[in-house]
Amino acid sequence: MIYNDIICAISTPQGNGAIAVVRLSGNESISLIDKLYSSPKEGKQLIDQTANTIHFGVLKDGDKIIDEVVISLFRNPNSYTGEDLVEISCHGSEYIQQQLLQLLVRSGARLAKPGEFTMRAFLNGKMDLSQAEAVADLIASSSSSLHKVAMQQMRGGFSSEIVNLRDRLLHFISLLELELDFSEEDVEFADRKQLNNLLNNIQELILKLLKSFDLGNVIKNGVPVAIVGHTNVGKSTLLNQILNEDKAIVSDIAGTTRDVIEDVINIEGVSFRFIDTAGIRETSDTIESIGIERTYDRISKASIVLLLVDATEEITEIKKAIKTVEDKIGNTDKKLIVVINKIDQGNIDVNFGELIRKEDIVLKISAKTGENIDQLIKELLSVVNLSSLNQNEVIVTNIRHYEALEKASESLQRAINGLDSGITGDFLAQDIRETLHFLGEITGEISTDEILGNIFKNFCIGK
Amino acid sequence: MIYNDIICAISTPQGNGAIAVVRLSGNESISLIDKLYSSPKEGKQLIDQTANTIHFGVLKDGDKIIDEVVISLFRNPNSYTGEDLVEISCHGSEYIQQQLLQLLVRSGARLAKPGEFTMRAFLNGKMDLSQAEAVADLIASSSSSLHKVAMQQMRGGFSSEIVNLRDRLLHFISLLELELDFSEEDVEFADRKQLNNLLNNIQELILKLLKSFDLGNVIKNGVPVAIVGHTNVGKSTLLNQILNEDKAIVSDIAGTTRDVIEDVINIEGVSFRFIDTAGIRETSDTIESIGIERTYDRISKASIVLLLVDATEEITEIKKAIKTVEDKIGNTDKKLIVVINKIDQGNIDVNFGELIRKEDIVLKISAKTGENIDQLIKELLSVVNLSSLNQNEVIVTNIRHYEALEKASESLQRAINGLDSGITGDFLAQDIRETLHFLGEITGEISTDEILGNIFKNFCIGK
Repeated sequence: MIYNDIICAISTPQGNGAIAVVRLSGNESISLIDKLYSSPKEGKQLIDQTANTIHFGVLKDGDKIIDEVVISLFRNPNSYTGEDLVEISCHGSEYIQQQLLQLLVRSGARLAKPGEFTMRAFLNGKMDLSQAEAVADLIASSSSSLHKVAMQQMRGGFSSEIVNLRDRLLHFISLLELELDFSEEDVEFADRKQLNNLLNNIQELILKLLKSFDLGNVIKNGVPVAIVGHTNVGKSTLLNQILNEDKAIVSDIAGTTRDVIEDVINIEGVSFRFIDTAGIRETSDTIESIGIERTYDRISKASIVLLLVDATEEITEIKKAIKTVEDKIGNTDKKLIVVINKIDQGNIDVNFGELIRKEDIVLKISAKTGENIDQLIKELLSVVNLSSLNQNEVIVTNIRHYEALEKASESLQRAINGLDSGITGDFLAQDIRETLHFLGEITGEISTDEILGNIFKNFCIGK
Repeated sequence: MIYNDIICAISTPQGNGAIAVVRLSGNESISLIDKLYSSPKEGKQLIDQTANTIHFGVLKDGDKIIDEVVISLFRNPNSYTGEDLVEISCHGSEYIQQQLLQLLVRSGARLAKPGEFTMRAFLNGKMDLSQAEAVADLIASSSSSLHKVAMQQMRGGFSSEIVNLRDRLLHFISLLELELDFSEEDVEFADRKQLNNLLNNIQELILKLLKSFDLGNVIKNGVPVAIVGHTNVGKSTLLNQILNEDKAIVSDIAGTTRDVIEDVINIEGVSFRFIDTAGIRETSDTIESIGIERTYDRISKASIVLLLVDATEEITEIKKAIKTVEDKIGNTDKKLIVVINKIDQGNIDVNFGELIRKEDIVLKISAKTGENIDQLIKELLSVVNLSSLNQNEVIVTNIRHYEALEKASESLQRAINGLDSGITGDFLAQDIRETLHFLGEITGEISTDEILGNIFKNFCIGK
């Protein structure tokens, strides 16, 4: 598929820098840039140059020099988009970047939509849809685990798993459809027992992929940890100690409009989202009630609840806080970690065992001196099982893939049940076709404008 | 001069984007990257590739893939720095950028200091010092006039002017020094009349360059316009109207810690810095006194004072405000523009002529309806004479160049005076040598580590 319009965008991050890169893709992109280009070598034309070469020169708007640039030429099909593609490396002034972009638009290019370069790469067969989605994940990756999963997906690890499943189904469906052609003769080309084995086998793989989404979700969005505790109990000292202990990276979630403070800390390649909540206290005050409602809300969304109490507080107060939080957690699979802080100031020698479930734990720490922080980190990490990441196993991180797999699994289950109850080949074929359809949606063999629109609108401009 | 250490830096703006570029410069930079590079083509080595070519592949840290990248190779001397240079275009995740940088450092490169790539370009003779400085100006350029001056300087316009002056002086000084060798014979190889003409001629050119600094300064820093007026007098409406009228670009000065609000608006390629001040009112209140002090301070730093008054105010109040500001301006060369706003609500038919100097003007406008805004823009632009910019004349924008030119001018004047009073050739030669020295400082033929340090510390990293 060849697009005759030329798209352009600034591909480097917004702002001033040493250099910036403006990209141009489309059938006539090299001849477009050639009209603006002027080489120090008399008469040199970009259109005459071979692919994958670099050329110094100036870009001019009439007589006015916009910039001295370095131009990289890529030619169809050996480019990111699969089309002729030009990368202009200019001085990183925002003014120059904007002038250059305006010049390109005046010269016949149009501004690229978010992700449009990658969409062309997909439409031109340079990558499948799940690989295209991995490009966006890779750009957004902020921890080593997310980076690893996105890289694996971009390089086709997930796709080959799906393609493999589809190929095996396709073989059998062709046999089933052959049967339909000969339906009057009542033959079975497709061995039912083999088919049964295959379908169960594939179902098992799909269920495994579906299950990996829990981990994938944690990798993608971070492990939500609700910190419950009063302001003076040492929350920020604790977070700082975790940072020190682990040389972890802290980052703010920028640009969100949430009314809650989140600190994202990467510990051993996993992101933890520490969500600060208001304290828990019985109250009749309306405003504080709202605070408590919010605290409950955050507890309900967290995987780990970290109840931070002060060792110098009254024991009865501490017990009350533990009981309140434990009641709230109920019998969900959240993990409660009761952290008794400030043991450098006043140690507590009380057994809280009867107050908590057996999966929960009590840790005595000093956020100030760092005592037992390593133990706390170990407990946090124990919630996430990263061992599968090391085995190059495919992890599903994308909700779209998860949903498609769920639907594929449903129709596959119908096929399995149908096979058991001996339904006819045409019904069987229909269920398997449906499974193929949903698996095909993941890699984009089946796609609609709506699916594509939804995927690429979340990309950044210039990719 | 060849540096054996390899420098590296992220050259694109900070943040996430579609792509980012990491640069590597130094003698062994290509073989360094080769050790991390793995091509889809078996056995392909970057070190074997020709200059100015582009190569796709992955960069690995041991077994771990850091990213799929596009690598551009430049070879000594045909690169920005004049050394072997590698540009790595990676996915624009900050995580990947940092991982890549860390990998390069672990592999033998070191982090580049601000401007170090450009400093190497200077030290390797790829550009002179004023051209190197223009690179930083170009990156910081935010208006067409600044862009034009920086571009001209980067492409050697200013340098060739200075080199031309030096060459003409060098010819005469060699003759003067020849005289010194034959001093006992009392000969004059250097024609004193010709020398007199030359020195005066050069002095004229230097004075012209010095004079251009006023315009250069305005181009570089914007024309400071102090807006004096009460909050409800329509300041923001006025600024918005100027924006609309001229399709101008407004930008905030980010990252400054000033306690004053500045709006920078580009009008026809010139930046105007609109500095909002407190109102002027006689007061005994201490806090407001401080505000008035500040207002006076800003007026003293402005080129244009824009006194904004409300047509519906009492005439006596308006007159008092005009008188206060006019007194403050005194007989400086600041321009006062009295802007009577809201003439859509209440016209004033009073002659303020006797209150203001003849160079000042009174304009009646409506910020709301846009009436007479075009006239105001004309008056603002009249303060800046951009005609010389159109004649490709060299404009001095750099304070370092200005100071060097001032010193060159002083020693040249001593030479001229000495020539008039018939001083001996050796004194004359000394003054001219000094002039040569200061001119040489501009282009960097004469430079010290201190000068270089001061220049490049203000560069961005990666350039």
